[in-house]
Amino acid sequence: MTGMAISGKTRFVLMLGDPIVQVKAPAGFAAWARDTGTDAVMLPVAVPEAALPATLEALRGWRNCLGAVVTCPHKQAVAGLVDSVSPAVALTGACNVVRRAADGQLHGEMTDGLGFVAALRANGFDPAGRDVQLVGAGGAGAAIALALAEAGARLVITDRDKARQTALVDRLSGQGRVLCAQPAGFSAALVCNATPVGMNGDTAHPWPLEDLPRDCFVADIVPEPAETPWIVAARARGHRVQTGPEMVAGQMPAIVDILMAHRDGAEG
Amino acid sequence: MTGMAISGKTRFVLMLGDPIVQVKAPAGFAAWARDTGTDAVMLPVAVPEAALPATLEALRGWRNCLGAVVTCPHKQAVAGLVDSVSPAVALTGACNVVRRAADGQLHGEMTDGLGFVAALRANGFDPAGRDVQLVGAGGAGAAIALALAEAGARLVITDRDKARQTALVDRLSGQGRVLCAQPAGFSAALVCNATPVGMNGDTAHPWPLEDLPRDCFVADIVPEPAETPWIVAARARGHRVQTGPEMVAGQMPAIVDILMAHRDGAEG
Repeated sequence: MTGMAISGKTRFVLMLGDPIVQVKAPAGFAAWARDTGTDAVMLPVAVPEAALPATLEALRGWRNCLGAVVTCPHKQAVAGLVDSVSPAVALTGACNVVRRAADGQLHGEMTDGLGFVAALRANGFDPAGRDVQLVGAGGAGAAIALALAEAGARLVITDRDKARQTALVDRLSGQGRVLCAQPAGFSAALVCNATPVGMNGDTAHPWPLEDLPRDCFVADIVPEPAETPWIVAARARGHRVQTGPEMVAGQMPAIVDILMAHRDGAEG
Repeated sequence: MTGMAISGKTRFVLMLGDPIVQVKAPAGFAAWARDTGTDAVMLPVAVPEAALPATLEALRGWRNCLGAVVTCPHKQAVAGLVDSVSPAVALTGACNVVRRAADGQLHGEMTDGLGFVAALRANGFDPAGRDVQLVGAGGAGAAIALALAEAGARLVITDRDKARQTALVDRLSGQGRVLCAQPAGFSAALVCNATPVGMNGDTAHPWPLEDLPRDCFVADIVPEPAETPWIVAARARGHRVQTGPEMVAGQMPAIVDILMAHRDGAEG
């Protein structure tokens, strides 16, 4: 695979993580840049947490920098280093995209939830008016819950940590129909795992498949393995499924929209 | 032209300047990387001077960063922001390459002189034992003077600023035969312009061509225009010539050697 040649007119996005060797987003960004004829690259940077403040401070000054994409373990730390944040960042305390405005101000966004919903729609599932069972009320679960509520789903959130579960439901109470337990008449059209269950050799299931209606959509956000044992079992039972890598891929349009907002002309 | 795809395993070099749109080195670096199968890119960054300290501080922490190449107007400021410097940086007060060691320490080098001499050799001119007339005792002149003296030339340095001329000759007195005026028996085999004369529409000549022997090599370091009126006139008189862009191109091997020194294995 080849990319565009880098020149003095190229704009760029840093991808901040530690480690960084595993990231896939730079290839997705390169494909977007090639398809749209945009002279821009995404550069992965292996940055320890101690170097984050200097990195973001430097980035404020770089006129041909569009911002940064943030991956583990820096999403929380970066949320505290930007000048303004989106509602999803305020809710989750995590930030995965930083837009650099022309004046050097940094704005933090969180696209995990948008990417999840974008992937659902690409897979033919529109959450509007549907009943959704979400498992996991951590950072990723909160981002997905907000995006699903905003997309018009009726949402039940379950977490083994009941205090965390209740706190998230309370914070989302103004965002639509978000509940702590399945009410009468609730029929899950989508079950989503937003916990680490199934990651890296774990064979456990985050939610029982046995009682789900056959047409219930089953979605996981675990990135590795791409297909968790739960997803494999769901597919074998005839359910439509969505994997963690599909959520990641679904974020690229949202990431690009955020980074390119309010930009025009060449800088340098 | 295409480059290698950027991934999480790619190592990188920043190119720091302001403005940055005009730089050519990223293409030269990409050609080197392609020819050697090295997974590395050079990224131009438009960085105002106020952001240099944060930029270098951030760079110390980035494990997959090889360092930086520095262009106008930052060569002097960066010389004061690194942890150690080469003799050429100490002499000129300017730094155009920063190597990041694995422990984050930054070492500054200056390759203008090395690039000039490398280009001379590529053009079939070996300075060893030859008489050279150098015009200009500023930063670029000092770097070239040091490299020519180390390469074994006998060197006369001329500058309109006699104090600057004398100071440079004095500082180079331990480096070989460096003089303030042509001695008896001196016969220039090379005349080099290291002043801005001839840049951007200036038609003046930095040194008279009339009295030069026909086999004298004539070299300019002015980058724009690529061929100054002085170089055009020298070629018309039958002299072999070397242009500013040839000096720049001649630096890439030295730059790569510096950046890649003491590096091994993948980081990230």
